[in-house]
Amino acid sequence: MSYSLLEKQLKEIADLQYASAVLNWDQETYMHIKSNASRSRQIATLATLAHQKACSSELKKSIDTALQEDLNEEQKANVLIALKDYNKAVLLPEDFVNRLSIQTSKTYHSWVAARKQNEVSIFLPDLSEMIALKKEQASFFEAVHPYDALLDEYEPGATIAQLDPLFSSLKQQLTPLLQAIQNANTVDNQVLRQFYDKQQQWDFSIDVLQHIGYDFDAGRQDYAEHPFTTSFSAQDVRITTRVDEHDFSNLLWSSIHEAGHALYEQGIRDDMYGMPIGSACSLSIHESQSRIWENNIGRGKLFWKCWYPKLQQQVSGFKTTSLEQFYAAINKVAPSLIRTEADELTYHFHVMIRYEIEKGLIDGSIQVKDIKQVWNEYYQNYLGIHAQDDRDGVLQDIHWSHGSFGYFPTYTLGSLYAAQFYAFAKQAIPDLERNLELGHTKEFLKWLRTSIHAFGRRYTSDELCKLVTGTSLDTKYFFEYANKKYKEIYKF
Amino acid sequence: MSYSLLEKQLKEIADLQYASAVLNWDQETYMHIKSNASRSRQIATLATLAHQKACSSELKKSIDTALQEDLNEEQKANVLIALKDYNKAVLLPEDFVNRLSIQTSKTYHSWVAARKQNEVSIFLPDLSEMIALKKEQASFFEAVHPYDALLDEYEPGATIAQLDPLFSSLKQQLTPLLQAIQNANTVDNQVLRQFYDKQQQWDFSIDVLQHIGYDFDAGRQDYAEHPFTTSFSAQDVRITTRVDEHDFSNLLWSSIHEAGHALYEQGIRDDMYGMPIGSACSLSIHESQSRIWENNIGRGKLFWKCWYPKLQQQVSGFKTTSLEQFYAAINKVAPSLIRTEADELTYHFHVMIRYEIEKGLIDGSIQVKDIKQVWNEYYQNYLGIHAQDDRDGVLQDIHWSHGSFGYFPTYTLGSLYAAQFYAFAKQAIPDLERNLELGHTKEFLKWLRTSIHAFGRRYTSDELCKLVTGTSLDTKYFFEYANKKYKEIYKF
Repeated sequence: MSYSLLEKQLKEIADLQYASAVLNWDQETYMHIKSNASRSRQIATLATLAHQKACSSELKKSIDTALQEDLNEEQKANVLIALKDYNKAVLLPEDFVNRLSIQTSKTYHSWVAARKQNEVSIFLPDLSEMIALKKEQASFFEAVHPYDALLDEYEPGATIAQLDPLFSSLKQQLTPLLQAIQNANTVDNQVLRQFYDKQQQWDFSIDVLQHIGYDFDAGRQDYAEHPFTTSFSAQDVRITTRVDEHDFSNLLWSSIHEAGHALYEQGIRDDMYGMPIGSACSLSIHESQSRIWENNIGRGKLFWKCWYPKLQQQVSGFKTTSLEQFYAAINKVAPSLIRTEADELTYHFHVMIRYEIEKGLIDGSIQVKDIKQVWNEYYQNYLGIHAQDDRDGVLQDIHWSHGSFGYFPTYTLGSLYAAQFYAFAKQAIPDLERNLELGHTKEFLKWLRTSIHAFGRRYTSDELCKLVTGTSLDTKYFFEYANKKYKEIYKF
Repeated sequence: MSYSLLEKQLKEIADLQYASAVLNWDQETYMHIKSNASRSRQIATLATLAHQKACSSELKKSIDTALQEDLNEEQKANVLIALKDYNKAVLLPEDFVNRLSIQTSKTYHSWVAARKQNEVSIFLPDLSEMIALKKEQASFFEAVHPYDALLDEYEPGATIAQLDPLFSSLKQQLTPLLQAIQNANTVDNQVLRQFYDKQQQWDFSIDVLQHIGYDFDAGRQDYAEHPFTTSFSAQDVRITTRVDEHDFSNLLWSSIHEAGHALYEQGIRDDMYGMPIGSACSLSIHESQSRIWENNIGRGKLFWKCWYPKLQQQVSGFKTTSLEQFYAAINKVAPSLIRTEADELTYHFHVMIRYEIEKGLIDGSIQVKDIKQVWNEYYQNYLGIHAQDDRDGVLQDIHWSHGSFGYFPTYTLGSLYAAQFYAFAKQAIPDLERNLELGHTKEFLKWLRTSIHAFGRRYTSDELCKLVTGTSLDTKYFFEYANKKYKEIYKF
């Protein structure tokens, strides 16, 4: 049967991709510096082989024949998505994939060096090369705007035509909300900036992760400079976090955020290993899962009603702070320089800035040499602040060094999806908020598993959203959530 | 130029093999149990792809054309060894490689389960399958004895015709030496069986490793149940060790042994990545490097003259023990059940037992169902002892579960080569022993690097031995070393 042959072929491609993910995980956690060159070439070889297989005529033949077979609905979905993937993969020449992989590694190392010396110019030559490659990549696809072709890699179907009005509407609604917050009482978050023992922070995070359902028999948490989640199958999904003994807001919410991604991956059907239904829907849906745990749950008052007394017991430094003070502190809204440390409202301005700059870099209206200046101008205009140190400015994100242009918008989409899903979870699970107050998240995870995780890539982001909530993505859910939450905290 | 193309092809094969080694390392150190199934299939896929490339007609074509080119001596050696490898690889059908990889993983898990429950019968069905596959493997090659074909995988050129007389001569010389030791004074090693803090043991091992030249910027040490060394390039060579807080002889000499392997791999030429000269000569030469550091250096009196005062300072528990008592304790000779814990004399009986059993299993004169009984009979005959617990008996080694039949003899060969190399190192480095007394091993490592490591696979074990010492392997060096050392310790 051709479907079985197709399964075999797709699983082999997955084996190569997952093997490459193991090599990447090791590189970010335990590998030492002298191994960089050989590791880069090993990863590049795996990428090239996976690509060769993904656009091989043997694969196309199995797809075409399987389409003629009598398949069930799931099998049919797998074949159709495989065809779509093939049609995209075949447009990328092998030589290009190899060049991109090598340049990615080079650009990443330039970025690391530039950050180390706080010198943007070290990063620019390789960034230019990378952008040239990204333009080349876009040229292989038919798209209204070259940036659309890049967006499609992370968020299938996303376009500037859709995102421009979305961001513009978001900006319009965020601006008065932030104005109201700035005019209201100030919130003190100094309690988060004291000394907190590294091991105590780590142990508390492990407790929380275990409690929300992250399976430590099918994964692990390690330290890494840039927290990430990676998956080598639904049975091996690993997260990383970082710690700052003088900033409590660092480790825990990084861990919960990554655990949100990991709960999604651990909820993927293991019997669909390597098949489209056996992988995640899209980056925006992925981000919805990390954000829903990090923000809707992990920065929620209900969650902390149960966990704050435990925190006071397990981590020294919170004895004299009330739950109300703590809750306000972890939700303080203020313009800041670092995206990953931003509150859940100003966060979206960080995304919009990157979105605008990426569009400009790809369509040529922004030159690489001007990037620092453009960055600082945007931060001044959008957030009224200015980085003194480029490590807190244009050099802060790993994404461009990895060639990930078109990735940032999925962060905002994810937050919006999270709010919409959460609103419907409350309807679907009548006791949800009472359960959260008691620290019970099992029902909520179960709902996510059956409503979202188990489908994998069977539906597009938009189809899935309609299936779960009845409508396409709508910013109103995010603003209903945000208005209610911040009115209460800031009392306006 | 075909040689460049051949280089590209061989490096790609190496990339796949090294990637697989990373997946294996992770499996033995940080991976959790639920990932077993997916990890096994990922490793099997990498093995199959590497094998496909190793016996592809494209590779053969590059080899043949390169042979016609004007090459330097090193290039020529690389091509000729590549041809030899190709001629071997092409005899193994792809389907067989895949079945072997899957069965290896199954057999390993049966062995783990059998050990857990101390129940040999759990291991036997998969062991039978494995032996059937090993016989099948041998059948693809032309060899006088099927076991010769398996030996060749680990020690190119080794045969029963060579090993039978070698082991027989070894037994003949070892027996009177052991008799003399048994008739002499007894040595007390209770000092090694007290409580030694785990962290102190670890830290001391790191000090020693750094001092003998293991490069921690190109590797790392971790814990694993079965200590091993693995290499992902000369710039990433990792070791593992194990700890027992009630047996000091466990961690440190495991670490030094593995570091000996690692110093070899770190001494391989990085510019020869993926090429024959860029990999180790053979398992016996590899073992000579681990043994020379573990025994000739690490259990030597000169080494401890420098290190014992440091040990007394850094690890609690040695205050009242003299250097002489300690030195005798770490060299106590006595029959014991566990190969990896045996002294450097009785060790060879453990190897001989396995060698005899393997020969029998492969030629059919020993049945798998009788293996426990045969094992116990051999231990009674050779060492006069008997395992009460099969975990200390037939289930103790990982090798058969991995399908490694023909591997054990390289341990004995390695010790013999170590003694021979050490004897010639003393001639080549006039100050060697005075340096060792002062804790200086730099010159010794340099000698190993230039005399052995840098050649990689350019010469066979025998050619290398002749190059370094002027003659083929000769047991006399081992017995000169052993007689001198143990006469002094046991005063006979």
